[in-house]
Amino acid sequence: MSSSITYRGRYSEPVPTSNLVNDEEDFPEFEAFEDEEATPRAPYSASSLEVLQVEMSQKINKPNHFTSSYDLQNLVIRRGQEFMIRVSFNRIPEPSDDFQIEFLIGANPTLIKGSLVKVVFGPRAGGEGRWQGQVLEAQGGGALMIGITPAADAIVGKYRMYVAVSHGWGMQRTRRDATTDLYMLFNAWCPEDTVFLSDEAERQEYVLADYGTIYQGSVGSVGHRDWVYGQFERGVLDACIFLLDASRMPIYNRGDCIKLVRKGSAMVNSQDDSGVCVGNWSDDFSMGRSPTSWTGSVRILLQYANTGTPVSFAQCWVFAGVFNTFLRALGIPSRVVTNFNSAHDNTGNLKTDLIFKQDGSPDERNTRDSIWNYHCWNEVFMTRLDLPPGLGGWQVVDATPQETSDGHYRCGPAPVAAIKEGLLCHPYDVAFCFAEVNSDVVFHKRDKYGSLTPYRVEKTYVGRNICTKSVGSSRPYDITHTYKYPEGSVKDEQTMTRAEEYGCVRDHSDVPEIPLVVTITADQVYLGENVVLQVVFQNQGDGPRVIQAQLAGAIVYYTGVRAHRLRDRSFSVTVPANQSVTEVVTVAAEEYIPFLGSQLALYFMVTGQSDGQSVTAMKLVNLKTPKLTLMVSGAPQVNQEMFVTVSFTNSFNFPLRNVQLSMEGPGLMSSRSRHYSSIEPGSVITWKDSFFPRLVGPRALVAVMDCSNLRQIWGVIHVIITA
Amino acid sequence: MSSSITYRGRYSEPVPTSNLVNDEEDFPEFEAFEDEEATPRAPYSASSLEVLQVEMSQKINKPNHFTSSYDLQNLVIRRGQEFMIRVSFNRIPEPSDDFQIEFLIGANPTLIKGSLVKVVFGPRAGGEGRWQGQVLEAQGGGALMIGITPAADAIVGKYRMYVAVSHGWGMQRTRRDATTDLYMLFNAWCPEDTVFLSDEAERQEYVLADYGTIYQGSVGSVGHRDWVYGQFERGVLDACIFLLDASRMPIYNRGDCIKLVRKGSAMVNSQDDSGVCVGNWSDDFSMGRSPTSWTGSVRILLQYANTGTPVSFAQCWVFAGVFNTFLRALGIPSRVVTNFNSAHDNTGNLKTDLIFKQDGSPDERNTRDSIWNYHCWNEVFMTRLDLPPGLGGWQVVDATPQETSDGHYRCGPAPVAAIKEGLLCHPYDVAFCFAEVNSDVVFHKRDKYGSLTPYRVEKTYVGRNICTKSVGSSRPYDITHTYKYPEGSVKDEQTMTRAEEYGCVRDHSDVPEIPLVVTITADQVYLGENVVLQVVFQNQGDGPRVIQAQLAGAIVYYTGVRAHRLRDRSFSVTVPANQSVTEVVTVAAEEYIPFLGSQLALYFMVTGQSDGQSVTAMKLVNLKTPKLTLMVSGAPQVNQEMFVTVSFTNSFNFPLRNVQLSMEGPGLMSSRSRHYSSIEPGSVITWKDSFFPRLVGPRALVAVMDCSNLRQIWGVIHVIITA
Repeated sequence: MSSSITYRGRYSEPVPTSNLVNDEEDFPEFEAFEDEEATPRAPYSASSLEVLQVEMSQKINKPNHFTSSYDLQNLVIRRGQEFMIRVSFNRIPEPSDDFQIEFLIGANPTLIKGSLVKVVFGPRAGGEGRWQGQVLEAQGGGALMIGITPAADAIVGKYRMYVAVSHGWGMQRTRRDATTDLYMLFNAWCPEDTVFLSDEAERQEYVLADYGTIYQGSVGSVGHRDWVYGQFERGVLDACIFLLDASRMPIYNRGDCIKLVRKGSAMVNSQDDSGVCVGNWSDDFSMGRSPTSWTGSVRILLQYANTGTPVSFAQCWVFAGVFNTFLRALGIPSRVVTNFNSAHDNTGNLKTDLIFKQDGSPDERNTRDSIWNYHCWNEVFMTRLDLPPGLGGWQVVDATPQETSDGHYRCGPAPVAAIKEGLLCHPYDVAFCFAEVNSDVVFHKRDKYGSLTPYRVEKTYVGRNICTKSVGSSRPYDITHTYKYPEGSVKDEQTMTRAEEYGCVRDHSDVPEIPLVVTITADQVYLGENVVLQVVFQNQGDGPRVIQAQLAGAIVYYTGVRAHRLRDRSFSVTVPANQSVTEVVTVAAEEYIPFLGSQLALYFMVTGQSDGQSVTAMKLVNLKTPKLTLMVSGAPQVNQEMFVTVSFTNSFNFPLRNVQLSMEGPGLMSSRSRHYSSIEPGSVITWKDSFFPRLVGPRALVAVMDCSNLRQIWGVIHVIITA
Repeated sequence: MSSSITYRGRYSEPVPTSNLVNDEEDFPEFEAFEDEEATPRAPYSASSLEVLQVEMSQKINKPNHFTSSYDLQNLVIRRGQEFMIRVSFNRIPEPSDDFQIEFLIGANPTLIKGSLVKVVFGPRAGGEGRWQGQVLEAQGGGALMIGITPAADAIVGKYRMYVAVSHGWGMQRTRRDATTDLYMLFNAWCPEDTVFLSDEAERQEYVLADYGTIYQGSVGSVGHRDWVYGQFERGVLDACIFLLDASRMPIYNRGDCIKLVRKGSAMVNSQDDSGVCVGNWSDDFSMGRSPTSWTGSVRILLQYANTGTPVSFAQCWVFAGVFNTFLRALGIPSRVVTNFNSAHDNTGNLKTDLIFKQDGSPDERNTRDSIWNYHCWNEVFMTRLDLPPGLGGWQVVDATPQETSDGHYRCGPAPVAAIKEGLLCHPYDVAFCFAEVNSDVVFHKRDKYGSLTPYRVEKTYVGRNICTKSVGSSRPYDITHTYKYPEGSVKDEQTMTRAEEYGCVRDHSDVPEIPLVVTITADQVYLGENVVLQVVFQNQGDGPRVIQAQLAGAIVYYTGVRAHRLRDRSFSVTVPANQSVTEVVTVAAEEYIPFLGSQLALYFMVTGQSDGQSVTAMKLVNLKTPKLTLMVSGAPQVNQEMFVTVSFTNSFNFPLRNVQLSMEGPGLMSSRSRHYSSIEPGSVITWKDSFFPRLVGPRALVAVMDCSNLRQIWGVIHVIITA
């Protein structure tokens, strides 16, 4: 269907959806007034005011707008804040001279929709405009320093600019000049902007930090990795605008942060809309790069913009990392958040149902819900003018394609405050996010007829350690309290009641009180070590108990789905009244290593049966891995050659094959990769490379080593670059 | 990307999204209990209970469930209400006999998600099930009449059924039998169902009526046409389920009316998702059938289900008509609603901006918003458990692809009560619907520099005569009061204030009070007659006024977009103080007929200028057309041959070329079409055809004649069929 059919008869003009335009369709250089069309005259006389040159005053504007870091020839500014341009005329302008500066975005720009803006000077000044203009200084020789303040809700993207002088019978306009194009961003420094953030340290972190830490692993064994957001790197801002253009999002809506982030959450994944990243939760990444092998977002966004096709492959932290780059590049305060034991229920209720066979082993076939070991999403900071007071601030947005969020692969913005209060009745996707952090885990036993009986409800397993990188440091900042009141508190009960009033189905099964408790604990384990589990049975009853126990272990994907089943263990324990007995179970390294694949998580579930009663405990063990070693040398100065050395020793008893080692440092060096066909046990690799720092201040170099049997060995080094 | 990669590592099983399954994957006919697997035995002995036959008791169930009209071999029932099946055993069952009736929907059905349901009889009865079962009667010879009451929130769609008898060491199950498959619908008769509707006459209309009236035209000249919903016709219910399957909507969510209608609003249009209908608002329908040529939804849905590809072409009433069929077929109370002067603003604010040139003529290039002469959408009736109290009842859902509704081509459910109260803070798309009925029309004058000055705000033009067919009659029922408080009332002001608090941008331009008013009126005009306009200038000032007036006329699409511009008229009027002067302007038929194309709407706009002040009035004139004449003969009885004669006289002075004449009557005859290459002026066509009524009661036959220069000449005849 041609686009002409799509709009003909519906709109007078097609709705513009791209920053890329045929700029020959802009206004003509000389535009006669309508009432003068019949009598054309010479465009100007010797005394007419004429524009000789327009300068964008980058040296003044960039630091004022905190946009110095963008590796772009063109000016980047933030809306709602004055920027300066220097216009040189052929003579000194007089108060009677009538001229205007015109800003255009997208095709067929129009005043009424804000895609065409005119800032008027001279006799007509002070009229309709929502952008303000003033002459700051007459600089002699006919040059004026002019200040322009765009509206705080201006459309975000790439504008074309013209200066037009009125000659009474028409407008004489400057020629099209791509060097005066300017990029308009959201402005966290502007109180009138919906993304205003009052704290300067937070703005530095959430808008300007171009690398950060993403948390992974499991509760009790929280790991982390560094991620290069790289929003200032060459081509990245253009790639983010390309993404919006590829989504065909109307230009008119691109000043609205809610619509823009919602569209972004859809476009960062490739489902529905050929967006940026292709999700892949299998072990087979042969058609692309493994999700664990990326050092950051830059290569992904540039590849997408260069090819126009989705990039393979991503898992949740990649979606969140790329989305974070997109958000910060456009000036929206954002951060990557990790939720541990994240429930993923495809009916969106508050129950995560786990089903067990009669012998106590997990019934994988009938268990449909999953609990992700962790899940990463983003938060953006904004006011929510569309909602009642109290729901502004941090909002959950999630670009990972989870299938049931309102039928489309996107999610949010959902106010974190609405999640905390159980206010599921407001857009967008609050109920879905609420379930991710609040689901009850319901344990069912399946009898021989296939009927299910719930025997335990675990209310505190899901939604733990919700955390993000601290402002100004790489330590985790626990923000669980922003999502939930303390478990069991009055406020928590109120939230749950409210959520149920809004249709959230919760489990109220009558489960028996059993005077028997089982727990599993394990120390932190490095890959290659034996896993030692302490299974503790506690008998709170007044009689002794004989317990038949079944320990099921598995290597699991981080989505909680089983990749490989380990050997089951059955044992019997007798626990005297009011006592505990600890059974130590050792899983030898040799048992898991051959089947580990790329997974680093082992999952254990013990079910004990005694007198027809069942108890169950779960434990996730995340294997720790060694790090890459990075060293830098050379004078840490802008544009001075420096060197980085990355090294790794294979301390395992197995070889690493087809190893990819990648490295990048935003503002220091762009992404580079090396390939090693094999790293034998005990052998060492070392890679030294040089770079020329582009940006001053604290900087980081991130390296990641990845191969099919050992994923995501990473390292980072920090360096402070001076001018 | 293969589906195996899509789910591997994320889910233990792929999420089922289709009613079509490989039923060989259902349970085996003999399923040994797990603990018996090691010791197989003979499946049954001579004394074992054995199922001989299962009958679906259609004669009892169909009238009880109001599903007699569905032209289907299989049983159709409504959830939350008991239905009966007759199970014949090899002997008289005893209380100790243990058997269960199993209902399965979609692939990999599972108890926990409700896609597998077991209703248990015998010693294990009364367990977990949310569906209830009881033995109603032992009918001798081992036959039991069994009553099953599905849960009131059961999944909707096509279930497979088995009866399984427990033999102590396993379950003996009936063989797969497609004739016992049953269709489960929403139930407007069940107080526990979210779509419960208490009034029987309303249920008859909004669930069971299979044809109806859709209103079109313009304010003051409301036209109508009949539309065959045909939800009971052969293949239609299966086509509606096919549509859900094609959308890949998870089976698990298909009991949730909110999710289902939202998905339906996306799937009825082809945008995004290869849904049912391709929109086309141009004049060129050469690649398909013109939107005006359909008699109803049946052919469209069957063609979609048979080919799996979108059907060309539709405009709003076609989308609404097809969506209404989908909704009623699935048992959801629904109706087609028409909003006259429906605002369509692609930035979603409360302003529809019309721009005029200096001479008073409309500036089409710079006017981006449009006001549709009318727009049709649907309302569905349901409780909204996800929202605060008071927002249940009728909900707007709109399947017409309008571009900015949350970035996807779908809309709603938006509570009508939320629109009335300005509660834009709840899902879904309330703000968009609010603007459609409440926008202010802002008139701007564009000066020679391109700057805009608002000179008039019209607050009552948009959202008029909102109406739907009355219950039990074809008269329009005005429901404007359910969308809006009276203009200017205190409640109306409160609604507007609330809407603004929720971020809806409204115009507060200071427009001058002018003591001059202009209005246009016109009598109803038949196609081929001259259009006589009365342009009345009223001078409310104390001095005389000389007014320079400009009358612009155009043939417009029903979307308000101009198809052809008529000759402009300028005239001057002098109006004494405190008096009125009427200028009569006649537009001869010859002026519009050659350019009419398929459009039947003329749009006039007069702008008067006096002392630098402007006044404007708009008038839409809908040309009336003759009707087809239908006559029936023969005994009006089920399965008795009857005859229908449709005739038309070309009373115009131009020939009609390539004429398509179509006719259908739900429950009477399926759609038939004839083609006439030419109908010359003055000539008559007559088509007689026979049919055999299938359904009793009041029935209708609808005929539509359509050609490229005269659209949608229609007629209807009603007939009461007896048994």
